[in-house]
Amino acid sequence: MTHSSSADQHPAHAPGVPITTVIGDGQLARMMHSAAIELGQSIRLLAGAPHASAAQVVSDCLIGDYTNLADLRQAAAGATALTFDHEHVPTECLHKLIAEGVNVQPGPEALIYAQDKLLMRQKLREIGAPVPPFAAINCEQDIRDFAEAVSGEVCLKACRGGYDGHGVWFPSTPDEAAALVTKLRAQETPLMAEKKVPLTRELSTMVARRPSGEVRAWPVVESVQSEGICAEAVAPAPGLSPELSRRAQDLAVRIAEELGVTGVLAVELFEYLDEANQPSIAVNELAMRPHNTGHWTQDGCVTSQFEQHLRAVNDQPLGATSMLAPVTVMANVLGGANDPAMPMSQRMMEVWRRFPEAKIHLYGKTHRPGRKIGHVNVSGDDVATTRENARLAADFLVHAEWADGMEI
Amino acid sequence: MTHSSSADQHPAHAPGVPITTVIGDGQLARMMHSAAIELGQSIRLLAGAPHASAAQVVSDCLIGDYTNLADLRQAAAGATALTFDHEHVPTECLHKLIAEGVNVQPGPEALIYAQDKLLMRQKLREIGAPVPPFAAINCEQDIRDFAEAVSGEVCLKACRGGYDGHGVWFPSTPDEAAALVTKLRAQETPLMAEKKVPLTRELSTMVARRPSGEVRAWPVVESVQSEGICAEAVAPAPGLSPELSRRAQDLAVRIAEELGVTGVLAVELFEYLDEANQPSIAVNELAMRPHNTGHWTQDGCVTSQFEQHLRAVNDQPLGATSMLAPVTVMANVLGGANDPAMPMSQRMMEVWRRFPEAKIHLYGKTHRPGRKIGHVNVSGDDVATTRENARLAADFLVHAEWADGMEI
Ligand SMILES: Nc1ncnc2c1ncn2[C@@H]1O[C@H](COP(=O)(O)OP(=O)(O)O)[C@@H](O)[C@H]1O
Ligand SMILES: Nc1ncnc2c1ncn2[C@@H]1O[C@H](COP(=O)(O)OP(=O)(O)O)[C@@H](O)[C@H]1O
Ligand SMILES: [Mg+2]
Ligand SMILES: [Mg+2]
Repeated sequence: MTHSSSADQHPAHAPGVPITTVIGDGQLARMMHSAAIELGQSIRLLAGAPHASAAQVVSDCLIGDYTNLADLRQAAAGATALTFDHEHVPTECLHKLIAEGVNVQPGPEALIYAQDKLLMRQKLREIGAPVPPFAAINCEQDIRDFAEAVSGEVCLKACRGGYDGHGVWFPSTPDEAAALVTKLRAQETPLMAEKKVPLTRELSTMVARRPSGEVRAWPVVESVQSEGICAEAVAPAPGLSPELSRRAQDLAVRIAEELGVTGVLAVELFEYLDEANQPSIAVNELAMRPHNTGHWTQDGCVTSQFEQHLRAVNDQPLGATSMLAPVTVMANVLGGANDPAMPMSQRMMEVWRRFPEAKIHLYGKTHRPGRKIGHVNVSGDDVATTRENARLAADFLVHAEWADGMEI
Repeated sequence: MTHSSSADQHPAHAPGVPITTVIGDGQLARMMHSAAIELGQSIRLLAGAPHASAAQVVSDCLIGDYTNLADLRQAAAGATALTFDHEHVPTECLHKLIAEGVNVQPGPEALIYAQDKLLMRQKLREIGAPVPPFAAINCEQDIRDFAEAVSGEVCLKACRGGYDGHGVWFPSTPDEAAALVTKLRAQETPLMAEKKVPLTRELSTMVARRPSGEVRAWPVVESVQSEGICAEAVAPAPGLSPELSRRAQDLAVRIAEELGVTGVLAVELFEYLDEANQPSIAVNELAMRPHNTGHWTQDGCVTSQFEQHLRAVNDQPLGATSMLAPVTVMANVLGGANDPAMPMSQRMMEVWRRFPEAKIHLYGKTHRPGRKIGHVNVSGDDVATTRENARLAADFLVHAEWADGMEI
């Protein structure tokens, strides 16, 4: 008996099907793979390490470096499309791949706006999309000037490389802000500042767009952030007026079109009260790939964001985005301060025993405090109960205890 | 750069998660894998060939022979449970594995009734489950006697190894039946005969059962057979009275319990009119694994049969089986007489363009006439439209033409 292992012995792709190369090895690539399998396809992975979330489960898996052109080239060979589970591939590499004939989706001209928070805001201002006041920050004086100009609290951001709140700071005084700028500039971190928005909540609008132009939007969701990390997404966003919902979707569609985004685009939004005390929206961030605020679509929507991304980057007609239940809530499973003694497989069992309707998605990751290791989707008829149940379930997976005190 | 390939380099399973070994390499194993990935797990496969449907996409894939004890033993090493995508593993091998400590689910005492149509009927009669009149057939006289006893048309079946109508015959005269028996017995095919049931339609009830006893049933579906192959499943079975639906579910639960089935059990049923002209049911066949008539659950149900099977064989609490839409129709994609020139990926695009709500599942299989190469699930509000759309979609994937004449 042989272990089917080498690429020749193990032909991971049926003849004639699209082969999508995914750069990156996290949970997004992992969930693209399970979607691809159902479509009769599979993905090819460029992973950093063989034990990474997606690398565990993808049979056509190359281990390499996503900043190395030779590795990217090898991963792209023979693929119908090349896409990403993160936005960190150097655009120079992507331009070279395109020149060699690789079908990169989304392309570097779009991706650059997901890589650089300052460029993104400049572009959005240019196309007339609402963004909070912002400025490039190169020195202490810049941040003092900006703070005075917006006469309020500011938010300092690394232009590149930030995620899950890493790379975002809220200094409480101009002096603190200035000291932070000096420290970060000494580390050569390119910086920008933004007015701290008195936000009422955060929303997220996701759309998918094909190279040939078709665009489809999912319902707008409310996303609940906790210490800079997405903790929860509620679909559809409770109490959002049809008018504002439409405005958010139109905005995301316009951004996708004006920036030439292909695949899935997430537009993170701030909801705040305008001068007339009416809810309004401004863009916070763009992601050009499946996004945490879209995980609910796996169980709450006709077409999941992972399937849609694969269809979009291969320029295939997009799927329906209608919901399967009145409400779907996604709650993230974020590693707690300690990993409880009860094994995760036992925690899953307890959750399923109490909530047979809970859809648990885990990423094959080991515990680390704050690490995204999974999520739970729960669908239901009303927001309060569904939200409560999703939270309880995710919380149990983290702490091995019921937050409402129920005995195991 | 290395191709992550050997078992050591490529640890297909995160630490501490259940590892389910699946014997078999078809689409059922393939779809168990995509379900497992979402649970943070993956499966280990014992496949017959590296290009087989499931072997393409499962990273921990052994190539071997499911009738060879050494191969089975190697595939089972370290697994939390061993299960199947077909019923053909010799029960002797399973008994030996169990003696060595392998957790085989379902066990051989149950599986034998899915392997042998005669034993199954004898057992069902013993527990009082309704089955059509039947008899073991060893010679011409047996079939003549049986035909006379049931005073009607008979159906001859190979006791073992039949599938998709292979191994089922409907001789039109006693002489034809007798000749068939002689021919088949000369080939040493063990035979049984059954009264040909004047069926009004076929139904299927699926349940899942855990070793520790929990059982859950899905809604009863109508299954449409064409030339012995499942062509379509409609959930819930249209026009089925709540009472008969309940009776079918109770029957399946009782069979699971009395036979000690674990994992998913499909009970194929005949619906016929009894003496009082009322619809009644009798069992046709049992399958102890996910089943074609349960594919609709992937998109129409809170818990798919593939996820449920993994949960059940690992003795984890079962998931909710409520429906996500009023109606879900599954239509099989069966290879046509010829493979159209239009590539399958193009056919998918045409189907998606017309039906953005169609969920296409393909198995990574090449064309062969009559071969199951995929299925389409469509959900909707009314049976007629949903059925029509599912049929049109599946038919287009086969013929690259719209059965209703629509131009491409
Ligand atoms: N200008 C702002 N005003 C108020 N809160 C902000 C602002 N910018 C960011 N935040 C908060 O910080 C979180 C993380 O910021 P974001 O720019 O999205 O960084 P990341 O790339 O880490 O997601 C946001 O989701 C929001 O909760
Ligand atoms: N006793 C019977 N009376 C009428 N039709 C039958 C009978 N047995 C089988 N059939 C028809 O043949 C099909 C295949 O028979 P089955 O025993 O289920 O074989 P397989 O193992 O190939 O599925 C059934 O789905 C049904 O349509
Ligand atoms: Mg953000
Ligand atoms: Mg059958």
